[in-house]
Amino acid sequence: MEIKIMRNVLDRNQDKASENRQLLEQNQVVMFNFISSPGAGKTSFLELLCENLAREFNIGIIEGDAYTYRDAQRLVKYNLPVVQINTEGGCHLDSNSISRALAEFDLNKLDVVLIENVGNLICPTAFDLGENYCIALISITEGDDKPAKYPMLFRKADIIILNKIDLIEYTNFEINRFKADLHKLAVNVPFFEISCTQQTGIQDLIN
Amino acid sequence: MEIKIMRNVLDRNQDKASENRQLLEQNQVVMFNFISSPGAGKTSFLELLCENLAREFNIGIIEGDAYTYRDAQRLVKYNLPVVQINTEGGCHLDSNSISRALAEFDLNKLDVVLIENVGNLICPTAFDLGENYCIALISITEGDDKPAKYPMLFRKADIIILNKIDLIEYTNFEINRFKADLHKLAVNVPFFEISCTQQTGIQDLIN
Repeated sequence: MEIKIMRNVLDRNQDKASENRQLLEQNQVVMFNFISSPGAGKTSFLELLCENLAREFNIGIIEGDAYTYRDAQRLVKYNLPVVQINTEGGCHLDSNSISRALAEFDLNKLDVVLIENVGNLICPTAFDLGENYCIALISITEGDDKPAKYPMLFRKADIIILNKIDLIEYTNFEINRFKADLHKLAVNVPFFEISCTQQTGIQDLIN
Repeated sequence: MEIKIMRNVLDRNQDKASENRQLLEQNQVVMFNFISSPGAGKTSFLELLCENLAREFNIGIIEGDAYTYRDAQRLVKYNLPVVQINTEGGCHLDSNSISRALAEFDLNKLDVVLIENVGNLICPTAFDLGENYCIALISITEGDDKPAKYPMLFRKADIIILNKIDLIEYTNFEINRFKADLHKLAVNVPFFEISCTQQTGIQDLIN
């Protein structure tokens, strides 16, 4: 019974995700879904994207958080439209909440929507939000075993970003091991090494 | 309907958790449930516990993982009984899987069971496993906003451990901010700062 209910939930999610994708296409908006562990640097990365891209593109941001409004508050300074989704303990965003968030924007005036999902490597990977690109953001300090341990995320990702590269010398992270595990999953998508605090690798990624 | 199903799931989980707790009490075994983000250092911390406590106590380990057996493999060297629970993409352990794992041990011969939950700060907090103590393990590199963003975990925790303290100088983590947020949640449990790689703070914690 639980499996059936879960299938219904995912089917309904998929329908709404398709609607979102269609709505974005009609308005020529591209949407990105950022998934990472708690504290891997999603908000810091979004800050850098806003700083570097806000002159060229009209950006809207959807902030997913289990409880607080802190991440949204960090982005207010860019004077861009930000919609906060508070899941009240829920472990992922779904396409229905994104649909309501998109309705808050004037999509005619946007080029890009960036979604910061709830910090979690598992549940968000099961819920299509209607995004055009899913971005997996992993930080060096989490260890190089993440592709093996969370294959669903890496199979779903269109771009993989390795953040906190400045800390690699203080850890036992080996990029070759990380890449070998991606290879085992047959994952072959653009891969970037960056540091949000040191602002390295950002320009490459943006180009 | 989904809410009702979820309540049934949690009620059944609670019943089985109580059974687990009773079984452990009958056998004078104390069980710990470790919850953290992916890559915060749960397995490294368990390795140190095994090294430091295995002469004094008979330890059994339950390893929860979404897919691989890697963490269990890391613990094989201690020659302790290890049971692996593979959730096949599931985002938390439940009391039923723990009940089956406990049946694999000779509980008469154990003093302590250590459970490594799936790396996730949200879903595992909703599922009582029958443990006696829940331990929240947070790493410095995740940022000092975790108590505000994941209050359920910190309210559930009987002990809070801050790992990777050796990396604090390379981050903007402020322990006072972390503690102030705990204070706002009225959380007042033992708190330890450690580094598994540098082996600092471990002896204090073990004592």
